[in-house]
Amino acid sequence: MPTVTPIDATDEQLAQVRYDANGLVPAIVQEHGTGAVLMMAWMTAETLRLTLSEGRTVFWSRSRKEVWRKGDTSGDVQWVRSAHYDCDGDTLLFVVEQQGAGACHTGARSCFFRAFGPAES
Amino acid sequence: MPTVTPIDATDEQLAQVRYDANGLVPAIVQEHGTGAVLMMAWMTAETLRLTLSEGRTVFWSRSRKEVWRKGDTSGDVQWVRSAHYDCDGDTLLFVVEQQGAGACHTGARSCFFRAFGPAES
Repeated sequence: MPTVTPIDATDEQLAQVRYDANGLVPAIVQEHGTGAVLMMAWMTAETLRLTLSEGRTVFWSRSRKEVWRKGDTSGDVQWVRSAHYDCDGDTLLFVVEQQGAGACHTGARSCFFRAFGPAES
Repeated sequence: MPTVTPIDATDEQLAQVRYDANGLVPAIVQEHGTGAVLMMAWMTAETLRLTLSEGRTVFWSRSRKEVWRKGDTSGDVQWVRSAHYDCDGDTLLFVVEQQGAGACHTGARSCFFRAFGPAES
């Protein structure tokens, strides 16, 4: 199992993050090594802080309206290897080691398993 | 210059996409080949349709409140190689060939050029 690696973000870095009217910021999750984009979910300032201090992704579930520690139920924990914020500070990117079968609740490794266009042969 | 490759999405596929209260859906852009996550922006149903038919990313600019054909001003056009929608249909992923210097208005290749934590040595 990967070791937990907390990330010590500075106050200056955290102050760069911009939240929407609901206090949320989109967080893209990319797999370390393969570069696969696994999923996108939402964080609050609190769950971003938890993600960095616990070294695993913690989101805000918009449907359940509660803190969502990814993998607590499924076992599919995402161990954070690096965390980034974009030029405008309004989107986050986490590079993770994906534990378990994958990131998607369907059992797929990535949530983006469907493509527009004709089915691939 | 890459050739334009329109994507013929089916009505059934397009009907899977869910837009937020403002009629927008987040669109992640990933670089073909390197797998680098370049940026995240927003699309309307109209700009998604334009993106697929023109084979290049077309976003909705929330700040300017207008259709934003990425690269028309900067030259940094993104040629779409594949287009995906996630399990919930509420996030899109485009794999592109990035023309020009990069995706970011700062001149950086990726908008995610800043990391939380101590500066890398």
